[in-house]
Amino acid sequence: MQMGGKKKGGDVQVAGDVEKATKAVNNMKLDDPEEDFSKDFYGVCAMHQSQSMEGPAYTEIHELFDKKYLDHEVCIRARLHRSRAKGKLCFIVLRDRQYLLQCVLSSGEKVSKSMLKFAGNISKESIVDVYGVVRASPVAIEGCFPDSVELHITKVFVISASSPVLPFQIEDAMRPDEENDDHLSRVNQDTRLDNRFIDLRTPANQAIYRVEHGVVHLFMEYLDNHGFTMIHTPKIIGGASEGGANVFKFQYFNSQACLAQSPQLYKQMAIAADFGRVYTIGGVFRAEDSNTHRHLCEFVGLDLEVAFKTHYHEVVDLIADMFVSIFKGLQRQYTAEIEAVNKQYKAEPFEFIEPTLKLEFAEGIRMLREAGWDVEEFADLSTPAEKFLGKLVKEKYRTDFYILDKFPLAIRPFYTMPDPHNKALSNSYDFFMRGEEIMSGAQRVHDPEFLTERAKAHDIDIKTIQSYIDSFRYGCPPHAGGGIGLERVTMLFLGLDNIRKVSMFPRDPKRLAP
Amino acid sequence: MQMGGKKKGGDVQVAGDVEKATKAVNNMKLDDPEEDFSKDFYGVCAMHQSQSMEGPAYTEIHELFDKKYLDHEVCIRARLHRSRAKGKLCFIVLRDRQYLLQCVLSSGEKVSKSMLKFAGNISKESIVDVYGVVRASPVAIEGCFPDSVELHITKVFVISASSPVLPFQIEDAMRPDEENDDHLSRVNQDTRLDNRFIDLRTPANQAIYRVEHGVVHLFMEYLDNHGFTMIHTPKIIGGASEGGANVFKFQYFNSQACLAQSPQLYKQMAIAADFGRVYTIGGVFRAEDSNTHRHLCEFVGLDLEVAFKTHYHEVVDLIADMFVSIFKGLQRQYTAEIEAVNKQYKAEPFEFIEPTLKLEFAEGIRMLREAGWDVEEFADLSTPAEKFLGKLVKEKYRTDFYILDKFPLAIRPFYTMPDPHNKALSNSYDFFMRGEEIMSGAQRVHDPEFLTERAKAHDIDIKTIQSYIDSFRYGCPPHAGGGIGLERVTMLFLGLDNIRKVSMFPRDPKRLAP
Repeated sequence: MQMGGKKKGGDVQVAGDVEKATKAVNNMKLDDPEEDFSKDFYGVCAMHQSQSMEGPAYTEIHELFDKKYLDHEVCIRARLHRSRAKGKLCFIVLRDRQYLLQCVLSSGEKVSKSMLKFAGNISKESIVDVYGVVRASPVAIEGCFPDSVELHITKVFVISASSPVLPFQIEDAMRPDEENDDHLSRVNQDTRLDNRFIDLRTPANQAIYRVEHGVVHLFMEYLDNHGFTMIHTPKIIGGASEGGANVFKFQYFNSQACLAQSPQLYKQMAIAADFGRVYTIGGVFRAEDSNTHRHLCEFVGLDLEVAFKTHYHEVVDLIADMFVSIFKGLQRQYTAEIEAVNKQYKAEPFEFIEPTLKLEFAEGIRMLREAGWDVEEFADLSTPAEKFLGKLVKEKYRTDFYILDKFPLAIRPFYTMPDPHNKALSNSYDFFMRGEEIMSGAQRVHDPEFLTERAKAHDIDIKTIQSYIDSFRYGCPPHAGGGIGLERVTMLFLGLDNIRKVSMFPRDPKRLAP
Repeated sequence: MQMGGKKKGGDVQVAGDVEKATKAVNNMKLDDPEEDFSKDFYGVCAMHQSQSMEGPAYTEIHELFDKKYLDHEVCIRARLHRSRAKGKLCFIVLRDRQYLLQCVLSSGEKVSKSMLKFAGNISKESIVDVYGVVRASPVAIEGCFPDSVELHITKVFVISASSPVLPFQIEDAMRPDEENDDHLSRVNQDTRLDNRFIDLRTPANQAIYRVEHGVVHLFMEYLDNHGFTMIHTPKIIGGASEGGANVFKFQYFNSQACLAQSPQLYKQMAIAADFGRVYTIGGVFRAEDSNTHRHLCEFVGLDLEVAFKTHYHEVVDLIADMFVSIFKGLQRQYTAEIEAVNKQYKAEPFEFIEPTLKLEFAEGIRMLREAGWDVEEFADLSTPAEKFLGKLVKEKYRTDFYILDKFPLAIRPFYTMPDPHNKALSNSYDFFMRGEEIMSGAQRVHDPEFLTERAKAHDIDIKTIQSYIDSFRYGCPPHAGGGIGLERVTMLFLGLDNIRKVSMFPRDPKRLAP
């Protein structure tokens, strides 16, 4: 890597934005370069093209919690969070994810005024290489992490300059909700999402996506340990996955195709194909004009399907156990991340009990009616009713996680297995977190004749699902499963208020960019 | 669960297909039901609706390798692979994935002629519950696994009947390639794919998808241990991901959208957003009319992107190390599966050396020219040239896995970083397995002005990629990455000849179903 531009002669490329930021410095140097005794210790590097295999040994900011670095010189690549010149001093705060390190440059024997000015003028959010000696700070440095050390700068180079005008300030974007001071700027959600590559730099966002990674990791870990095979199902399909409405359609060579609304049919074919226990992780697409806090037009589905032996509750209990394992794993392995999110977005800790509470739908209706709600026995719950039921459950059972079992048959998809003892009910279930549905599932009809009968009862054109029905003609074990919305699990576990906070590049009816 | 139909009275539902299979038996029983002293020990169960929480304790076929089951009664749910009546005996082979168990039913004191006939008439591929006593077999049972025990049947019930006419015979579908006997039936690929839920039941296919799961698992394990964050990138995007051609387009509410041809731009935004090291797993869509053994219109991309410090070879070496860890993991943890695949599809074991061989593109050209190939210095390699180079490399270095580095700039995408010392070359690389490309990657241009210049040089309309370019305006560390085709890795690791063998539900220009 070429460092300290000027010392290498003519190969310095100065981009427009950097030019502004360093104009004063460059001009000064051009006037009388010999005068600047610090000239080899700062500058704007040529564009990084992997010019050399040789480079300094880099230290990460979080490593500086280790006392072994005290009084040693280190080189750190990080973002310039802010800088402030103050007489003969320049204070720079470097940022790397949630870590913030204070650095000090003081003009004197080794640091020229030009160097001080250069450092003070580097635009916020630039990527810099800073060399310096790690010193213990006599007092805790407010707002920094680690707050017990600071870096006494010896060299500073700009690796990738930021435009000096930012769409918004990171400090505004990372401000806790509860700081209700009216003169403090806020960043609204659309501005954030329009400039997602900046917005995602906040400690809360860095943590949110680590937690989301954790959900997937723990989901897979549990299932891998329980004999599941991960499969991949096509997103491009010939017919609509759930019967027709709300699909994105397009031309596929000489055919009409659409985007899968769920991997349902393919998971079931894998069961008919003897895989026994399968899961799949992938995009799920809904052309639904829902503009709510919890709907997306593209989300990540964590889907699973299980052949069971005697009763579909074998599957319900397995999934409940899996969720408990995810919650425990998150609380154990992601403590720092959960804290970082809570620092900006306050939330009650997520509570759950063991064994997982399993209520029948009818019992949920009874609880709502007792609380004065006018709800029907065989109709689906409205979102407010669902949320209120969540509150009642939390009050009574002290859990944010529970299962509603035995939904009315009429409000479930045609492939749902009816209850064997009560024709109005079905072997189906929803799982809830903080009163919101995060998974819907059921035992599926695995008999082709009966499936045809059920499809007809739902006015579905049999021709459009013939190959689905036919996949059960050659023997299929009884099976049940469910589809989990990854973003909902992350959102509700963390107690966030909008699904757009947990989808890195969300898609809703009004947003297709970035 | 309700078992042994007749004993429960009127609740037996007999589906059409089963009716044929069991007609003789049913008729006989109707004539004089009292006469059949075995009537409680066999039958067709009512459709499994989770009628009861009570059921037998099931044993899996693979558990019978354990001697503790000898002379014990067990209940097994599996598929009826084949049955053969022979005088007073009926031999049934049960199948569960790659396991095959011989079972014997002999008419006598407890087994009536009707029961024997019933058992002999159950259609192949039906799911059955078989009760019986595990007995040691005096001789190894040919074609079974375990081959040292057999089950002496006491009860047999059909759980899910198969249609008696199968689209093809599983035994034909699992026959090794090298059995060149002309009178043996073969199943061609289209017939297999049209009936994928049957085709996937063969031991080779069961193993292939376990190995594919292994590739993903080992990919993630390595990256999770090396500080990566798993992200999810949208498949629905506003512009074409790589500049325009070969995309599936559709209407997204009031806008035009298309399916992502790669997660490239989003991975890079995550780098600009300080995630440092990211990977993503998901569908990649190419509207390319390529009908070859290695192209799909939808495949699973394993993509990664890494901010590096001094040289992009840091990333190349990390990816090479990751592949080695995948290969070792597969060979260690998936021995049985690799064997099962080889039993049907013979292949040389996959070989690799450490450290991974890294050749410069120019050296590859030199090797080909020396071998008499007429190849250009700055043009892309044709598929035959690529494969031949793979052979030359294998002969010289004894490795099926190697890297070509320093591709000519002109044949790489506009966002590829040029080599700093030779304008005709670039900081880009392909990885190969058995002479076929499985990953393409590069250091990316992270400077917005230079990226604009490069896009213009490629005649790309800047307006269409403005937001991509803008994402580098606010500081971005130098970074490199690559995109791996999951199916290609699985195919080439196993030495298979067609990518449709490793895609559960493949999509090509001619196939959109099932």
